[in-house]
Amino acid sequence: MNPIKVGLIGWGTVGGGTAKILLEEQDLIARKVGWPVVLKKIADLDLETPRSVKVDPGLLTRDAAEVIRDPEIKIVVELIGGVEPARTYILEAMAQGKHVVTANKALLATHGREIFEAAARAGVDLLFEASVAGGIPIIRTLKEGLLANHINYFFGILNGTSNYILTKMTKEGLDFAQALREAQDRGYAEADPTFDVEGIDAAHKLVILAALAYGLRVELSDIYVEGISRLDPLDIKFADEFGYVIKLLAISARSDDRVEVRLHPTMLPKGHLLTEVDGPFNAIHINGHAVGDILLYGAGAGMMPTASAVVSDVIELVRSVRAGVSGRVPPLSWQQVVEGASSLRPIEDIVTTYYFRFSVVDRPGVLSNISGVLGRHGISISAVIQKGREVAGAVPIVMLTHEAKESSVRMALAEIDRLDVVRGRTVVIRVEERLS
Amino acid sequence: MNPIKVGLIGWGTVGGGTAKILLEEQDLIARKVGWPVVLKKIADLDLETPRSVKVDPGLLTRDAAEVIRDPEIKIVVELIGGVEPARTYILEAMAQGKHVVTANKALLATHGREIFEAAARAGVDLLFEASVAGGIPIIRTLKEGLLANHINYFFGILNGTSNYILTKMTKEGLDFAQALREAQDRGYAEADPTFDVEGIDAAHKLVILAALAYGLRVELSDIYVEGISRLDPLDIKFADEFGYVIKLLAISARSDDRVEVRLHPTMLPKGHLLTEVDGPFNAIHINGHAVGDILLYGAGAGMMPTASAVVSDVIELVRSVRAGVSGRVPPLSWQQVVEGASSLRPIEDIVTTYYFRFSVVDRPGVLSNISGVLGRHGISISAVIQKGREVAGAVPIVMLTHEAKESSVRMALAEIDRLDVVRGRTVVIRVEERLS
Repeated sequence: MNPIKVGLIGWGTVGGGTAKILLEEQDLIARKVGWPVVLKKIADLDLETPRSVKVDPGLLTRDAAEVIRDPEIKIVVELIGGVEPARTYILEAMAQGKHVVTANKALLATHGREIFEAAARAGVDLLFEASVAGGIPIIRTLKEGLLANHINYFFGILNGTSNYILTKMTKEGLDFAQALREAQDRGYAEADPTFDVEGIDAAHKLVILAALAYGLRVELSDIYVEGISRLDPLDIKFADEFGYVIKLLAISARSDDRVEVRLHPTMLPKGHLLTEVDGPFNAIHINGHAVGDILLYGAGAGMMPTASAVVSDVIELVRSVRAGVSGRVPPLSWQQVVEGASSLRPIEDIVTTYYFRFSVVDRPGVLSNISGVLGRHGISISAVIQKGREVAGAVPIVMLTHEAKESSVRMALAEIDRLDVVRGRTVVIRVEERLS
Repeated sequence: MNPIKVGLIGWGTVGGGTAKILLEEQDLIARKVGWPVVLKKIADLDLETPRSVKVDPGLLTRDAAEVIRDPEIKIVVELIGGVEPARTYILEAMAQGKHVVTANKALLATHGREIFEAAARAGVDLLFEASVAGGIPIIRTLKEGLLANHINYFFGILNGTSNYILTKMTKEGLDFAQALREAQDRGYAEADPTFDVEGIDAAHKLVILAALAYGLRVELSDIYVEGISRLDPLDIKFADEFGYVIKLLAISARSDDRVEVRLHPTMLPKGHLLTEVDGPFNAIHINGHAVGDILLYGAGAGMMPTASAVVSDVIELVRSVRAGVSGRVPPLSWQQVVEGASSLRPIEDIVTTYYFRFSVVDRPGVLSNISGVLGRHGISISAVIQKGREVAGAVPIVMLTHEAKESSVRMALAEIDRLDVVRGRTVVIRVEERLS
């Protein structure tokens, strides 16, 4: 039995976990595929930094080409992340007839079209379960488990760092800076946390999930993305009083042949399972026309959970290599993928309910001024809290609206923010009532 | 393009949902597989009862052989349930070279070995996602998504009827008979609810999941099964006071090369997501050595959620037929399945924590009597509530224990139940602390 050889590019945290499973679990893997699988080479520019996983030094090389060009290697695992040189390595490996496993959400979200088309041209398979939500098998679920469904909508907590920070802010009343520092101390956030806290990482994943859900390719630049860095603990408290929890939510929904794809802090009604997803965990709630509501929950990152997804993909590919089949399932599960920009519903056209916090001077008639402007823009109020707690010369008025159009909201708030009695910019948080 | 033909045996609720998707979603399916798929025949003995889904009467037949023997039909869907004639139909269809999709948990849990071996002999694929937890892709998750993991343990709420009844008992204080009647009125429970409330249906599903998780075949008769019909609302209330929720839980765990597989009412610590799974929903929590904890949640039954799983399996098979491959993944995902009886940990050998409710006469020294017996059997107490509420001449003493062995518990309780001061049989509920 000639073992199937695997090569790994990227010897970081997830690479270490991947090597650990491939090296230590040969028996388990053989029992699953009936065939030996061997990790033949690991390429990384940095071979000096000590690693927690020990491997035979003979496996290691600084030259990725030794993996890509090795004719014995049938499956290449790319775990260096980022666009280049990952893109070039993957394209070269596929051109050499190798199947590819990657966890690279940034690459797939920005160069997916090129990568998927190259895979089809080369007749190889490309799997990327680890690119979204770590060990949670969300990509397989969309590609296979929910095949029979039109996806109506899905919501996801897709970034563990920002969810950890939000959880700290919500449960312990910390402000953003304090919570970020704690996340950094615990290794949940990087020194430069921009990608995580500004929603870019989660938006990459959202773009991938939307492509899988609807067979629709959208660009990161087409979608509305707002992170958590400007979130005020005050709004978390008011949300709580109204019966909501704030999460950084990836949202996608289809209606009237338009798809909305957006990512921003969102108020979710307490009692929904997503509001219980705390700390570094991820979860995705999906509604399909046949299956109804389902939810998947688990570790969204980390060495071993992510490696679990990577190695499960490797074993899937081994099964296909053994069966002599490739291209059985297209990378995005759809035979034809539609370019999505023209099918997208622009953020200005979405209709949802809103939370506003106005900072106003404490004077009679202010609420009537504000509600007058809202009314003229067709925005009706469903609840108001006016508590008179003075902050920096102003008091907050917080309110929830009935359903309104984003463009109307923007116009109304521009007008309101120009009123004499209004101090500072109005805080806007979108509410998700489909999860009630 | 010669369409791939599908035949359906069983024109009940799920059969109707399956036909509905196959007939109405041809475009969706074609976009997923790049090939037309046609439902050619539907067999059922009863063609008279009006159905909510309308089909061309030319599709219908009373004779299952017209499906099984049709040389054009490549995929047979069995949805009649029960052991016979489903078993014979499936074996015949496979012998004719047809791939099979089934939702039949009773058949797979009691005749799995025969069915899986026949599939291997015939070189056909057998998929059964709909047999466990309706539309939740738990079987694919174990077969593919968590391939790289040793499963350490899993817990499942696998029967919507009993979960609906328990939810009513917990949230509204109903007793079992009242909650059952409500479930029956709403169509969640059948006239004879035995299969659901005595845990048999959930145990069938547990046997299937254990086979997938460990590659271990166990018999229904090997495992401990206890339903909810004798559950007293009083214990639900005491559980609440201790910080627990009672669920009918399928439990399986592996340690020291032994696997425990059991199903019974179980106290779960509040705060765990499983305690939030209410009404007819199902959920499964899995712990894998690499992935850590993951949880899947959704509708565990019903026409369309179950049909979602059935048709997703059909489309998977169409993809394989199109790619000219079969047997790529064995039915249970393992190349070799081990006969499991000798690897099972008997219920007497499990170690867990317990809840006891003793009914005693209200007299000094009783608690000391009871704790004396427990102590002699090595069972130590972690909490006691003794409230003196008299019920039928006795007062309850409720307690939680530290970890103890089931056999010791049984011996101790047999002794305690013989004490003069004890009235009636002690109530025992196992506690699951691995979910804290």
